[in-house]
Parts: sequence; C-alpha cells; structure tokens
Amino acid sequence: MSLKLGNLLDNLTGKRLKTEEIAQEKFNVFWGLPIMSSDAISSVAYAGEEILWKLIPIIGILSYNYMLYVSLCIVFLMFMLTFSYRQTIDAYPEGGGSYIVAKDNFGRNTGLVAGASLIIDYILTVAVSASASTAAITSAVPALLSHKVAITLILIIFLVIGNLRGIRESSKLFGVPTYLFIFSILFMILWGIIKVHFGGYVPKPVYNVPAVSGEVTWFLLLNAFAAGCTALTGIEAVSNGVPSFKEPSQKHAKTVLLLLSLIVLMVFGGISYLATLYHAVPNSKVTVVAQISHQIFGGNIMFYVIQCTTAIILIMASNTAFTGLPLLLAFIAKDGYAPRQFTKRGKRLSYSNGIIVLGVLSSILVIIFKGDTHFLLPLYAVGVFISFTLSQFGMFTRWIRNKGRGWKYRAVINGVGGLLTFITTIIIGVTRFKHGAWIVFILIPALVYIMLKINEHYRKVAKQLKLSVDEMPKKVNFSEQKRYVIVPIDTLNKSFLKALNYARTISKNIIIFHVSIDGESTNKLLKKWDEYDIDIPIVVKKSSYRSVIGPLVKFIESEEYYAGPEDTVTVVIPQFVITKWWGNILHNQTALLIKTILLKRRNIAIVTIPYIIDEC
Amino acid sequence: MSLKLGNLLDNLTGKRLKTEEIAQEKFNVFWGLPIMSSDAISSVAYAGEEILWKLIPIIGILSYNYMLYVSLCIVFLMFMLTFSYRQTIDAYPEGGGSYIVAKDNFGRNTGLVAGASLIIDYILTVAVSASASTAAITSAVPALLSHKVAITLILIIFLVIGNLRGIRESSKLFGVPTYLFIFSILFMILWGIIKVHFGGYVPKPVYNVPAVSGEVTWFLLLNAFAAGCTALTGIEAVSNGVPSFKEPSQKHAKTVLLLLSLIVLMVFGGISYLATLYHAVPNSKVTVVAQISHQIFGGNIMFYVIQCTTAIILIMASNTAFTGLPLLLAFIAKDGYAPRQFTKRGKRLSYSNGIIVLGVLSSILVIIFKGDTHFLLPLYAVGVFISFTLSQFGMFTRWIRNKGRGWKYRAVINGVGGLLTFITTIIIGVTRFKHGAWIVFILIPALVYIMLKINEHYRKVAKQLKLSVDEMPKKVNFSEQKRYVIVPIDTLNKSFLKALNYARTISKNIIIFHVSIDGESTNKLLKKWDEYDIDIPIVVKKSSYRSVIGPLVKFIESEEYYAGPEDTVTVVIPQFVITKWWGNILHNQTALLIKTILLKRRNIAIVTIPYIIDEC
Repeated sequence: MSLKLGNLLDNLTGKRLKTEEIAQEKFNVFWGLPIMSSDAISSVAYAGEEILWKLIPIIGILSYNYMLYVSLCIVFLMFMLTFSYRQTIDAYPEGGGSYIVAKDNFGRNTGLVAGASLIIDYILTVAVSASASTAAITSAVPALLSHKVAITLILIIFLVIGNLRGIRESSKLFGVPTYLFIFSILFMILWGIIKVHFGGYVPKPVYNVPAVSGEVTWFLLLNAFAAGCTALTGIEAVSNGVPSFKEPSQKHAKTVLLLLSLIVLMVFGGISYLATLYHAVPNSKVTVVAQISHQIFGGNIMFYVIQCTTAIILIMASNTAFTGLPLLLAFIAKDGYAPRQFTKRGKRLSYSNGIIVLGVLSSILVIIFKGDTHFLLPLYAVGVFISFTLSQFGMFTRWIRNKGRGWKYRAVINGVGGLLTFITTIIIGVTRFKHGAWIVFILIPALVYIMLKINEHYRKVAKQLKLSVDEMPKKVNFSEQKRYVIVPIDTLNKSFLKALNYARTISKNIIIFHVSIDGESTNKLLKKWDEYDIDIPIVVKKSSYRSVIGPLVKFIESEEYYAGPEDTVTVVIPQFVITKWWGNILHNQTALLIKTILLKRRNIAIVTIPYIIDEC
Repeated sequence: MSLKLGNLLDNLTGKRLKTEEIAQEKFNVFWGLPIMSSDAISSVAYAGEEILWKLIPIIGILSYNYMLYVSLCIVFLMFMLTFSYRQTIDAYPEGGGSYIVAKDNFGRNTGLVAGASLIIDYILTVAVSASASTAAITSAVPALLSHKVAITLILIIFLVIGNLRGIRESSKLFGVPTYLFIFSILFMILWGIIKVHFGGYVPKPVYNVPAVSGEVTWFLLLNAFAAGCTALTGIEAVSNGVPSFKEPSQKHAKTVLLLLSLIVLMVFGGISYLATLYHAVPNSKVTVVAQISHQIFGGNIMFYVIQCTTAIILIMASNTAFTGLPLLLAFIAKDGYAPRQFTKRGKRLSYSNGIIVLGVLSSILVIIFKGDTHFLLPLYAVGVFISFTLSQFGMFTRWIRNKGRGWKYRAVINGVGGLLTFITTIIIGVTRFKHGAWIVFILIPALVYIMLKINEHYRKVAKQLKLSVDEMPKKVNFSEQKRYVIVPIDTLNKSFLKALNYARTISKNIIIFHVSIDGESTNKLLKKWDEYDIDIPIVVKKSSYRSVIGPLVKFIESEEYYAGPEDTVTVVIPQFVITKWWGNILHNQTALLIKTILLKRRNIAIVTIPYIIDEC
C-alpha cells in the first residue's frame, strides 16, 4: 500500500531529473512579453473594481467621473515606474529583484526588509490571483459560487503539483493565453465603445447604483487611488527576469517592459472607461469585468471567452509567484537568512520546499479570507510598494555613489520614482491600515527579526563546528583507548545476540545492562542467562517508575561505571526492524526512545544493530 | 517553551508514581453500589425516551399505554440477567468479564468476538453517556444547545485528563452523586405521582402529541423493546469488578447486583410511569426527564438539581468505560491480540494508551453523530447484548462441563439467560439494523480479524527472534574480524573529526566517503583534506540526482567495497545536535535520513556520534 502511494506521488510529480538537466529556456521579445507580464496584466481584472468599491458607496453615480481621474494618476505612476525599472535592468543584467538591489546598495538589514516584503507579496499574489481566477469562473457559472474556497484551493494544489514537476519546460505555451486575454479584452473594449457610441445602445445598469451619501473628499480619492494601485503589482517581474531573455538580454527586457506598460495602459484604461460607460457596480457575486462583458456580448460565446481567458491569465499570475518565491527563498537561504532546506532542489530540480511552503501559506490565507479578493487586496499593495520604494531608492543611491555616464539624469529618474512610490506607500498604508494593511506592518518586522535570528543561529553553529588549523586530527591508534561498551538487554533473543557479537568485535570491556520493570520477567531472563553460560557480567537495575532510559543514563553517569570525562561510552542497541510499515505500530519503540535521549549526551557513541524481521 | 509545555502537561497529569503504589481501594456494599452501578442506573436517563421515540410517531397518544408493557418486559429481562450474573460472580471471583468468560469456555475466537463487542461498547458508552450528559445540561440551559458537540468534547477531554492522573484514588467521592441522583429521581417520581393523584394537578402536554398514523404491530412493539434495552447496558459491570469488593467479595458483589436491579426497577419503572402520566414527547432539544421534571417542579431549584445530578451521573457512566476499556485492552494485549503498548502503565500507573485511544475514538463518534444520543443509541445495544449472550452461554457450557453442586439448576438459569439475551440480540439487530446496528455487524468481524492478524504478527516475530538452545553465543574475540568502517563526510568540521576519531578506535580499515552534489563544495573539501594531511583514503562519488544516501548504499553493495556476506559494515555517522528544539528545523536532517534507510539492511552497524551544539 505504501508502495502504491509512492507510485502515485511519482506519477504526480514526474520522474527525477539530473542536475545537468537544468535548462533555461531563453525568450525573445514576442514570447518574453506574455510570459513575464501575466502578473501585471492580470491585475487589471480586479484593480478597476477596487476603485469602484471605494467610490460607489459614498458618491454613487458621481464615481464614474472620478474613476477616470484616479486611473489616469495610476497610469502616470506606472510610466514613472517603467522608466525607473528600465534603469534597474541596465544596472543589474543578472536580474535585479528588490532584495538584491536593496541589499547591494543599503546593506543587509534593508535587503531583509525588501526580502520580507517580497515574501509577503508572493504569498498574497497566489492567494489574490487564485481567488480572482475563481471569481472569474463563478461569475460565468454562478452555481459554483458556494464552492469558491474549494475551487481556489484546487487551483492552488494544481499549481503546487505543476511546479513540483517543473512547469517551466513548457513555458512558451504560457504565452498563448496571455495574448488571448489581451486580444479578447481589447476586442471587448472596442466593441463596447462602438456599441454605445455608434450602435446607439443605451446601457441599462444591472445593479442599482447607490445614492450619493457623502462628499468628494481628498481622502476618498486617495483611498480610491490606493485601491487601484493593485494594478501595478507584478510590474517589477521583468527586471527580475533579465537573464531569461535572449541576447542582447537587457535590450530585450527593456523593450518588453515598455510594451507591457502600453498594454496595461490600454487594458486598464479601457476597462475603467467601460465601467463608467456601462455603470458597473462592484459586488461579491459578479466581477465588474463580467458585468461589462455580459452587457456588451449578452450571454453569447464571447462572454465566456472573456471569463475563461481572465481565469487562465490569473492562474498564470499565481504561477509567477511559484517561480519567484522559491528562487527568492533560495537566494535568502544561501545568504544564511532562511532555513537551508530552501536551497535544495527536489528530484525534478525545482525548489520543492519553497513551492510547498508557498502553497500551504497561500491556502491558509484563502481559507481565512474565504477566497474573497476584496478582503485580501488591502494587504497586497503595501508590501509591493515597500519593495518598489526600497528598490528605487537603492538605485538612486547607486547612481550617486558610482557616478558613471549620465548619472545625474539617471539619479533623478530613480529618485522621482522612489519618491512617488514612497508617497504611494504612505497613502496605501494610511488609507488601508485598518482594512488589513496593519497586518503587513507587523509581519515585515517579524519576518526580518526571524531572518536575523536564523542567521545568528547558523553563524553560531558554524563557529562551534569550525576547525582551527592547529586542530589536526589526533592520531589515535586502533584500540588504544580504554573503552567500555554497554549493551542493554530486555529479552535474550537473536536480535540481542547479534548486538552482543558486534560489541565483542569492538571492545573487551562489555557490560550487559538490564532494567527490571517487573520481577517475573527479570528472573526469567537471569535464568536463561545462566543456561547460556555467557562470560560477561550482567548489571540489573530496578526501575520504580517503569522507565527504561532513566536507570541507563543514571548508570552511565554513576561512580560505579564512570571512566573519566574523556572516555567515550559506547552503547550498542539491538533493534529489530519490521519491514512492513504497520508492523512498527505494534512494538514499543524503546530502541528509538533510548537513542533519542542518549543523543543529547556528550562523549557517547550510539551503535544500532538492526535485526531484520521478514514478512510480518 | 518546550520546557513550559512539559511543565503544563506535568501539572495536568500529576506527578509520576512508583509501581508499588498501585493501591486498590476496596469497597463495601454501601460504596460499591453507587460506584459500580453509575453506568447501569444512568441508562434510565435515555432508555424511556428511546421507547417513546419509536412509539409516538406511529401510534401517538396510545404510546403511553404500551410503554408500560414494554418497560415491564425490559424489567423482567433485567431480573433474569441479574440472576445469571450472580452465578458468574460465584464462578469468577477474579472478575468475569465477557471476554474472559467466553475465552475460558469457548476458546480464543469466541473470546475475541466478545472482546470486540466489548471494545465497541465501551467506546459507545463514552460517546452516548457524554452526549446524554450534555443533553441534560442543554435541557436546563437551552442557550448552550448550539454548542452541544463542543461541550461533549470538553467533557471527554476532562475524563481523559482525569483518568491519566488516575482518578480512582478519590473514587469514594464518586459514590455521592449516584446517591444524589437516585434520591432526587425517586423524590421526583414520588412528588410527580402525588401531584397528579392527590394534588389534582392535570398535566398539560408541552409538546403536541402527534396524531395516530399507524397500527400497533408486533414489529412496532419489538422495536420499542429493542430501543428500551439500552436501559440494561452497564449491568455487567459488577461481575467484572468482583476483586474491588471487600471480603467476602463475592457475597458483597452479589448483594450489590441485586440492589442495583431493584434501583433500576424503581427508577426506570417510575420514569416510564411519569412519562405516561405527563405525556412527555421526545424531541432533540429537551430530554424526556427534563420535560417531566419541569412540569413537576416548574422552574424551581429541584428542576436544576435533577438536571445537574443527571448530567453528573452520566459523566460517571462515561468514566466507567475509562477504567474498563484500558483494562480490557491490557488483558487482550497480554494475550497477544492487541498492540503491546496497551499493557504499559503510564507514569501515574494508569494504562495511558488505552485511555487516550478511547478518548480519541469516542470524540470522533461524537463529531460524526453530532453529539446526538438518539443517533448513537442504535449502535450501542447490539454490542452489549452480543457480549451478554456469549457470556451467558459460556456460563451454561461451564456448568454442563464442570458439573459441581446444583449444576443443573444453575445451567438452567444461565441457559435461559443466554436464550433471552440471544433473542434480544436478534430483535435489536433486526429492528435497528438499518439505523446503524449494521455498522456493528461489520466492525466486530473486522476487529476480530485485526486482532488475529496482530497475534499472527507477534508470533512470527517471536519465532524469528527465539534462540534455540544450541545457538550459544559465538566466542568472537575482540578485533578478530576483518572490519571496515565507513565515515561519510560532508564538511571537514569538528563534528566529523569526532566521528573519525571514534572510528579509529574501533578499526584500522577506515574509508571516508563523500557524495558530491556540487563540484565547488567538493573541491573545497578536498583542498582542506589535503591541508589537514589525514592518512586515510577518501572516496568521492558524484550524485547526479542530488541524493546522498543512494551513492552510499550503492557503494556498500559494490564490488569495490564488498567484503563478503558475513562481514558487518560499520557506518559511523557524525550528527550535530542542537539543544533547542526549533534549531533542528533549520538543518537538513541528512544524518537521520541515512540512518533510517541503512536500518533496513542486514549486516550493518550504524554508529551515531553526537556533537552537541549549545545555545543556538
């Protein structure tokens, strides 16, 4: 049964790969664009909706005027970021994620802050995008609405399995749905505009627009701006992925980044415009995009195409986090600030531990927030913008410090970029603080603290393990030491005898040690011991509290036995091993317990002599 | 933190006790009665209600006539059982549980059937009684109704903790609430009768009695009878517990059994009569007992006293299972039919494993059946009556076989008892089959099969471990064998050096073995190896699939190394041990993995050399 389970797992995760088989597919602009940008482009599926969520309950029908202004500000910010990040691409041809840029220019601690923000981002990217993907599905098939958490979790599980297999091998295929999404959305925008302006269609609001209940305040507009900034998440992916482009990789990456911005401009601007035109009203059942496309296309095939490509591009956005976070964790772990296991590649060469941790944490978020994008988003943008800010100011510092050709001009661009993202971070932090952003402000310092503690631990361990040059290995000669070997006995059986025979080969000073829990079995043992006439002393200790390990440890430490602090005690433990997995449930795991406790003593050698028992 | 957790657990479960401290408190009739009978007496809290559940939906108001007849049959059956069990007490002064009686007289397999029924019974006793206790509480405080599963689970957790502590020490205290229950219920019965017959009170039904919708059929009455038989559960407890009585223990036990029956007669009969008088209608919110006592006492203090004592006696009924099942499992485990762990006494001398298993399984039942007594009861009585039947027929066979004074008369009593319980088993099985009894008919054979498999396993293991007399231990001399010692190396550090130094003391033939996962670290290692000028060969194997253990096992099995099938390979594994518990999360547990896999090989000795790393 365990065998079959093993096979099943193997089939799910694919056959193992050799280390040499790491193959990095390189992209040109045409494929790099869709592959690098699914995260950024897919954000438009929820960003416009988020702006409306803020405005509509307060200023009702007026929202549609202000939405466009807010969107314009966001688009402006995006272009500033684009130019800033093009400079990062120039400076970091090996890939300039915020962690690396911040660490490189501000040192360790700032790097860790950026790292912590990115870790939180990536986890949220998966939770948000998978939830939004489910929302696209349930908007088309409302019957599934009550299962949205389950659907989201299934999507995440698929991503985990796919990434454990190493999904990248087929990554060109991933470009196709992004193009499909871009084209179908652009078609919808075009058709939607034509239908109203040339076809004379008068949009009928499907949901009631709430009455105006408040005034247009700066705070309200900033709030809407902060909410819409989720559209910019994922824009930094291109600068991280420079090495994935064909040569000249930097030039290709810069082109892709510019194209990406133009696409987001069109798609985000277009959807915002349509939302005002068709008076979409956000609610927790049907997404704004679905409302618009349903008005434009009715229930025909194009409606389902839009929902379907939206769902797919959002899954791909989640997927970018599954390549991004494990890589980031491996970086941080190599620097010694995260558990070392994150540097280990699994049998399919993917960083399995990072993938699994990401899957688990994002699933927990989905469960806590009941798979609702709207509740998750306030946490999302803060982390992203903190890492933007650190990365931009990092670049700014770099130009100031290193100078180089045109450094003043470049410093201004990154400086302005940094300033704008910094202001945005504050706006987002303040307006969304009580909706969840506070969690991020607790989590980031907590994560940084943990990472510092981990590093301290590794450094202490390394220090204690490090050999100094003068600590040459002692030329201890074979059998030079006075060595005592203790063999615990419970019953005189083959397993014990095997252990005893082994003990004889390594020492002349053997002590058989028996812990007596009930007198009857002890007498039986001693009688048998006499029968077999073994020429080795047996020490019997009574255990009042029925513990086997207590008296053994006490004996090792006692005067009676004690052989000096430098002496290594060897304990030879007979352990019978049942080959069937369930067999071990049926036996007291005394050998295991003894070993676990003895391990914590100094000057001890624990020898396990397995005795295999077949077919039980 | 782990330390504090340990302290907390210690406080919860009390300080450890010496084996000699097993103190069996012995009871006279006055204390033995309430302590042994809480299970049986408490059953009346739900038995009458169960009869009405069957009758009322079909024959409405007529139920109250038939209820009395059904109750009379049950009382008759009880007295037959009482006389049968008094004979068991005579025959088994050491305690005659069904498992022992059946095994003794019919042999192993029948004993196991009785054992399996008893195991199921005990688990159900806890689930049913704890749920019924909660029902008594929620009937008095309806606000708690929506938390009934949680309340039941909390009660079970308290029982588990209490029994791990060894609750028996204060067991005389346990007699008090039983007497309180008996007296308050008898008072209620008396008062209820007076109120109607002498006070001229005309009971007004609180709930509507459903209209008559069917006929009075035999099947219906048998159904009601089967449902009411739950009143008899727990009656066998006295015969199990003979050794707990003061001398002359058998006489005391027999007196207690008779008194118990008389009390059940009064209480069960009285409640049945009151139910007909006050026209109680069973429902899932307020118990029948609560309905009656509320009508009799209004909302005054006596109503709460009744609910409170009912709740307490039901908890004590659950508690009997917590002493019964672990003891039974210890018996079965000593015979080799259950995992050996059940024979181990915990630090407080209670059979901890049995207690925990019972707590977990009954909690699962409570969760599955949503804490509703009414859904659990159909499973309950079958097992009880199967064990009654086996025990009675066992006694019958015993008399036939052993003869002895008055054996014919005694054989008739047990024979009739067996026949009646057998018929009742069939009635219960048939009428309640589709309501859940079928589960028991699957579980009993399944459990018996598992127990037989466990026994087969233990016998096979014992056979393979057993020494024959001619297998005298070989007089292998120290260092006589040609012995190879392999020391795996990852980094040249203090931990490795300690292992190497130990290896030198046990053999001259040492091989250092390195698995190369990336070339860079291997080169670093080899360079350092040269620097330290160690006079031992180092073997380097490349691992394409990044596994450390694969190449090691392959090497041990290869020509290159192979030293004959009789040779024992010693693998000395350096393992650094972090003293803080969370430290181990931060390290790849390679040493552990290697040990686990090597353990499954023959002719191997695994030596672990711990290297303690402090304060990390």
